[in-house]
Amino acid sequence: MFVNGVEVEDTYCECFDVYVSRVIVTAYNHCLAETAAIEMTGFATSVIMCPAEAGIERKLGFEETPDGRAGISVLICHPSKKTLQNQLVARIGQCVLTAPTANAFDGLSEAEERFDAGNKLRYFGDGFEREVEVSGRKCWAIPVMEGDFIVENDFGIVKGVAGGNIFIMGENQPSALSAAIAAVDAVRNMGGVITPFPGGIVASGSKVGANKYKFLKATTNERYAPTLRGKVELEIPENVKAIYEIVINGLNEEVVKEAIKRCILSATRIPGVVKISAGNYGGKLGKYKIYLSDLFGQ
Amino acid sequence: MFVNGVEVEDTYCECFDVYVSRVIVTAYNHCLAETAAIEMTGFATSVIMCPAEAGIERKLGFEETPDGRAGISVLICHPSKKTLQNQLVARIGQCVLTAPTANAFDGLSEAEERFDAGNKLRYFGDGFEREVEVSGRKCWAIPVMEGDFIVENDFGIVKGVAGGNIFIMGENQPSALSAAIAAVDAVRNMGGVITPFPGGIVASGSKVGANKYKFLKATTNERYAPTLRGKVELEIPENVKAIYEIVINGLNEEVVKEAIKRCILSATRIPGVVKISAGNYGGKLGKYKIYLSDLFGQ
Amino acid sequence: MFVNGVEVEDTYCECFDVYVSRVIVTAYNHCLAETAAIEMTGFATSVIMCPAEAGIERKLGFEETPDGRAGISVLICHPSKKTLQNQLVARIGQCVLTAPTANAFDGLSEAEERFDAGNKLRYFGDGFEREVEVSGRKCWAIPVMEGDFIVENDFGIVKGVAGGNIFIMGENQPSALSAAIAAVDAVRNMGGVITPFPGGIVASGSKVGANKYKFLKATTNERYAPTLRGKVELEIPENVKAIYEIVINGLNEEVVKEAIKRCILSATRIPGVVKISAGNYGGKLGKYKIYLSDLFGQ
Amino acid sequence: MFVNGVEVEDTYCECFDVYVSRVIVTAYNHCLAETAAIEMTGFATSVIMCPAEAGIERKLGFEETPDGRAGISVLICHPSKKTLQNQLVARIGQCVLTAPTANAFDGLSEAEERFDAGNKLRYFGDGFEREVEVSGRKCWAIPVMEGDFIVENDFGIVKGVAGGNIFIMGENQPSALSAAIAAVDAVRNMGGVITPFPGGIVASGSKVGANKYKFLKATTNERYAPTLRGKVELEIPENVKAIYEIVINGLNEEVVKEAIKRCILSATRIPGVVKISAGNYGGKLGKYKIYLSDLFGQ
Repeated sequence: MFVNGVEVEDTYCECFDVYVSRVIVTAYNHCLAETAAIEMTGFATSVIMCPAEAGIERKLGFEETPDGRAGISVLICHPSKKTLQNQLVARIGQCVLTAPTANAFDGLSEAEERFDAGNKLRYFGDGFEREVEVSGRKCWAIPVMEGDFIVENDFGIVKGVAGGNIFIMGENQPSALSAAIAAVDAVRNMGGVITPFPGGIVASGSKVGANKYKFLKATTNERYAPTLRGKVELEIPENVKAIYEIVINGLNEEVVKEAIKRCILSATRIPGVVKISAGNYGGKLGKYKIYLSDLFGQ
Repeated sequence: MFVNGVEVEDTYCECFDVYVSRVIVTAYNHCLAETAAIEMTGFATSVIMCPAEAGIERKLGFEETPDGRAGISVLICHPSKKTLQNQLVARIGQCVLTAPTANAFDGLSEAEERFDAGNKLRYFGDGFEREVEVSGRKCWAIPVMEGDFIVENDFGIVKGVAGGNIFIMGENQPSALSAAIAAVDAVRNMGGVITPFPGGIVASGSKVGANKYKFLKATTNERYAPTLRGKVELEIPENVKAIYEIVINGLNEEVVKEAIKRCILSATRIPGVVKISAGNYGGKLGKYKIYLSDLFGQ
Repeated sequence: MFVNGVEVEDTYCECFDVYVSRVIVTAYNHCLAETAAIEMTGFATSVIMCPAEAGIERKLGFEETPDGRAGISVLICHPSKKTLQNQLVARIGQCVLTAPTANAFDGLSEAEERFDAGNKLRYFGDGFEREVEVSGRKCWAIPVMEGDFIVENDFGIVKGVAGGNIFIMGENQPSALSAAIAAVDAVRNMGGVITPFPGGIVASGSKVGANKYKFLKATTNERYAPTLRGKVELEIPENVKAIYEIVINGLNEEVVKEAIKRCILSATRIPGVVKISAGNYGGKLGKYKIYLSDLFGQ
Repeated sequence: MFVNGVEVEDTYCECFDVYVSRVIVTAYNHCLAETAAIEMTGFATSVIMCPAEAGIERKLGFEETPDGRAGISVLICHPSKKTLQNQLVARIGQCVLTAPTANAFDGLSEAEERFDAGNKLRYFGDGFEREVEVSGRKCWAIPVMEGDFIVENDFGIVKGVAGGNIFIMGENQPSALSAAIAAVDAVRNMGGVITPFPGGIVASGSKVGANKYKFLKATTNERYAPTLRGKVELEIPENVKAIYEIVINGLNEEVVKEAIKRCILSATRIPGVVKISAGNYGGKLGKYKIYLSDLFGQ
C-alpha cells in the first residue's frame, strides 16, 4: 500500500491493556497550566524504567473546565492499577499542588471505577482543608501559600490501550525526524491519545529481552538499527539511514487507530521518507492488533 | 533592610547537603536538546514524593559541548547517593537515549567521585555497543533506530546544597506570582543552580511533619497560608494575600547565595510586592544558614 | 452589572469598518507555519503608524488545509482596500515566500471580492513559475532554492469590524496584566478574530487627536493614566493603579461580540481586577456600538 | 575545503553598508520583553519590500539593562539613514510603547551619531510627559494606561554590514532545513548580529533583477532552484535537492565573519548536508568580500 506515494508495509502494531486516568489541570492561562502539566508528565516515557507513562492530551478552552479557567488535560497510564493510583497521588501532589495557580480535576467523570486521589491529598491541609463544590463536583480546598489549592475528590480509572506505534524510515536522519515531528504534530490536541516519549518521538526502539545480556528486560532492536548494516541482517530497505518510532497510548482502540492514521498521513508528506512500518511481537504479547492497511480502507 | 523599596526580613534560609550530578544533553539544536532535558527533569520537584530533584541549569553554546552541538545542562539531585545513581541510569536511559538526536555527557569532569551510568546503559546495545572517544572522553556508541546514541562512560557526583529559598509576599496573587516569575527568570542560565519546582515556583510551601495528620512527613505551612487569616495566627503582614516560594538547589553555597540575591533584586522590582522572607527550621535540620542581609553587604 | 463579582461598566465599545483578508500559511508542522505567520503579522498593531493590522487567528489541523499540512490562519486588516492589497503582496512575498517549507492559501474562498496577490507574486519566478491546482484551487508553483513555493492565485477581501475593545482595571499592574493575558488566551484559536497588539495587549490606550501637541493624530488617553492621579481628573476608580486594553478585529460584529464576552469572562476570574470598561468616541466615529451589558443578556 | 567532512566552496559572500540601531527592550521578564521585540522586528526580512530589516540580537541579563529588568536587544537596519530614523520612531512607538511593561533604551551608547527617537515619541504624552534619568541616561516617562512608559531620548546609529550569507545544500529538504536551523541556533544570542528572515532562514534566495520580468528588482535565483534541474543549468551538485540561505546583518565585518564561521561549523554536523557555498554578485555591488576559506585559516 502507498500513502502520499510512500510505501506502507502490510503489517500491524500490537497493543496492550493499560489503566488510564485523565487529570484536568487548570490555571490563570494555558501557559501556566502547561507548566504544571509538563512537570507532571515528565520522566514518564515507558514503564520499563519510569514510574508511569504520561503525556499532555490537549488544551481545553475556558468553557470546558470545571472552574472556567484555562485547562490542559493529561493522561497517566500504568499496567498496574495500584501503581497508577500511587502515581496519581504523587504527580498531582508534587507537580500540580505545588504549581502556581493550578487546580486538578478529574477528566473521566463517567468512569465507574474511581480512586480518591484528592481525598488522599487533602491531608496535606493538616486539618485546615475543607470540602467545596465546583460545578457540581466534590472537591477539596487546601489552604497553601498562594491561597487555596482545589483538587477533585476522586478520579476515574479506565482500561485503555498502550503501545500503538509506527516506524518512520527515512533516507537520512533529518528526513525521518522531520516526518516524526509532523506525525506527532498531527495528533497533538486530537483528544483521547498521548505520545509519551520525548517530543512524542522514540529514537531507540527496543525488542523484548536480549540476545547477549539476558539480565535485561529490553534491549536495542538491532534488526532496525541502520548503523549495523553489514553486521546484522536488517529488516529495513537499503536506502534507509534512520528510523523513528511514534508510540501512542489512548483511551480505546478506535482512537489509537485514528491517531495512527493521522500520523501516517502527515509523515508521508515529508520529503525523504522511504517507508512506514509498525512493531509487533507476532501477536504473542498484546491483545490488540492494528493493521495499517485497515486504516486506509484497503 | 529594604531592596528596591521592599522590606526584606532579617532572617535566613536553611539549606541541606545533597548529592548532585550534571548531565550535558546535546542535540541538533537547543530546541531538541531541551525536549530531552524537559522529559528528563520532570516529576522531580521534591524528594518528598518524587524520585529525584532535577532541573535545567543552562544553555550551552555549540563550542561548549563535547560533540560540538547544541547543549543543555541539567542538574539531578538526591540526598541518597545510591538513589541518585539509579536515577541517573533511569533518566538518561528513558529520557535521553530515547530522545531524537540526543547524546548525554558528564558535566562534572573534575569531580573525583564517579559513577559509571554510561557503562550501565551500554548493555542496552545487546553486544553491538562499542567504545568511542569524544573530545578525549570515554564514551559508548549504542546502535539504535535513529543511528548511534552516544553516552559518556561515567558521571561525576559532588556534594551540593539543597533548599535555598525565599518567600515572596504580594498584596495579591498576580503580583506575588509576577515577582516569582521574574525571580526565576533572573537565575535561568546563570549556571550552578536549578529551581526544581514547576516553572521554578512553589505555590504550596510546607512545614516538616504535621499537627493533626501525624502520618505525614510534610504538610501545609499554615502560618503562611493567607486564606487562613482569622483562623490561624499568621506570620505575614496584614496586606499580604499570596506568597510564592522559590527553592534553589546548587553546586555549592556560594552559587546558591548569588542566586538568592538575584531573585530578590528582580522580584522586588515588581509592583505590589510587600515583603521578602525566607524559610528555616530554627537551624535544627540543615547545615547551612544563608542570611538575607548578608547578601546585600549589610 | 457584575461578572464573576467584578463590576462591568454600563458602556459600549465603538467599532469601525475595515477590509480583511485571511491567509492560510501551511508548512511541515505548526511550529514552522507559526514562524512564517509571526514574521508576517509583525509591525502590525495599529494603522496609526504600522502599514497594516494583523495577527494570528488560529491553528488549523492537517485535515483543514488545502495541502494537507499543518496550518496557521492569519488575518490582515486595513481601512484602505488598496493598502490591504499592497500589504498582502508584500507580507506574503517577504514573510511566507521566504519562510522554510511555507505555502500561502486563501482563507476566504467564498468572498466575492478577490485580489490576485498570488498572480502578482508569481513574477518572482521570472518565467519559470507554473500554474498548478491544489485541492481544486488555482495556484502558482514558483521554483525557489528550497524547492517549489506554492501560492494561491487570488485572495478574498471582506468587510470586517475593527476596534472592538475592553479596558481591564487592576488594583496593581500585575493583576491587570494577568487578567489581560487571560483575556487574550480565551480568544486565541477561537476563530474569526485577532488581537493585533503585542501579545494581544495594549499598554497605552490613546485618544483621538491631542490637547497640546495638535500635530498628532493620537495621544495618550490621560483620563485613563493612573500615574496622573492628582494632576488630571481620572475616569477610573480610586484603587485602580493600572489598566490594559484588549483590541479585537474580526470578520463581523457577531464574532467580535463573542470574543469580548470571552475576554470579560476570563479576565474577571483573576484576583485584583477591579473593573471592566470599554472605549468609545461618543458614537461619532464608528458605525458599530457593542454594549457590554448586551453580551450577558442584561 | 572540508569542514566536518562537508565540502565548503572556495568562494565569498558579498556584503553591503547599512545603517544600524540597537534598541534594548526591557520588561518584567524575558518572555514579556520578547513579546514586544517579536512584534517590533516583524515584517522586516528584506528592504526589497519591507520597511526595514530587523531581528532579535540576544537576551540581556537583569544586570545588563539600564532599569535592572529582563532585556532583549534588537537590531534595526536600513541602507537609508532617514528611513531608519522613521522606522525607529514607528517601531518603538507602535510595538514597545504599546507592549505590556516594556521600556526602550539605546543599545549603542558610544555611537557618536544620535537620533532623538525618544524625543519624538514623548509628544504622545500630550504635555504630561516628564524627563527622567535612568542609570545616567536622559529618558522620558510618558503616562499611559498601564503606568509610565520609559523611553531613552536618543539612540545611536552606526554603519554596519548587511548581506552576509551562506548557502546550505542538502540531499533532501529536511536535511538542508535541519542544518539551517542548527546554523541559526549557533548565532542566536551571540551578540552583534541578526538573521532577519523568518526563523533566520531564507527559503527563496533571489538574484538582482530579472531575465524575463524586467520590471522586478529581484527574482528567483534559478540556477540554484533544484526543481528546475533539466530545464536550467544549475550551479549545484547533482545530488542536491534543496538549499537554504542564512542571511546575516551585523555591527561590523568581524562579527559577521565570526557568525558565518559558527553557522558553517554547526550546519556541517547535520547528516545529509552535501555542500556549503555563499552568494555574491561578482564584487560589483557590495563593499565587503568575506571568503569562506579565510574563516578557517586556510
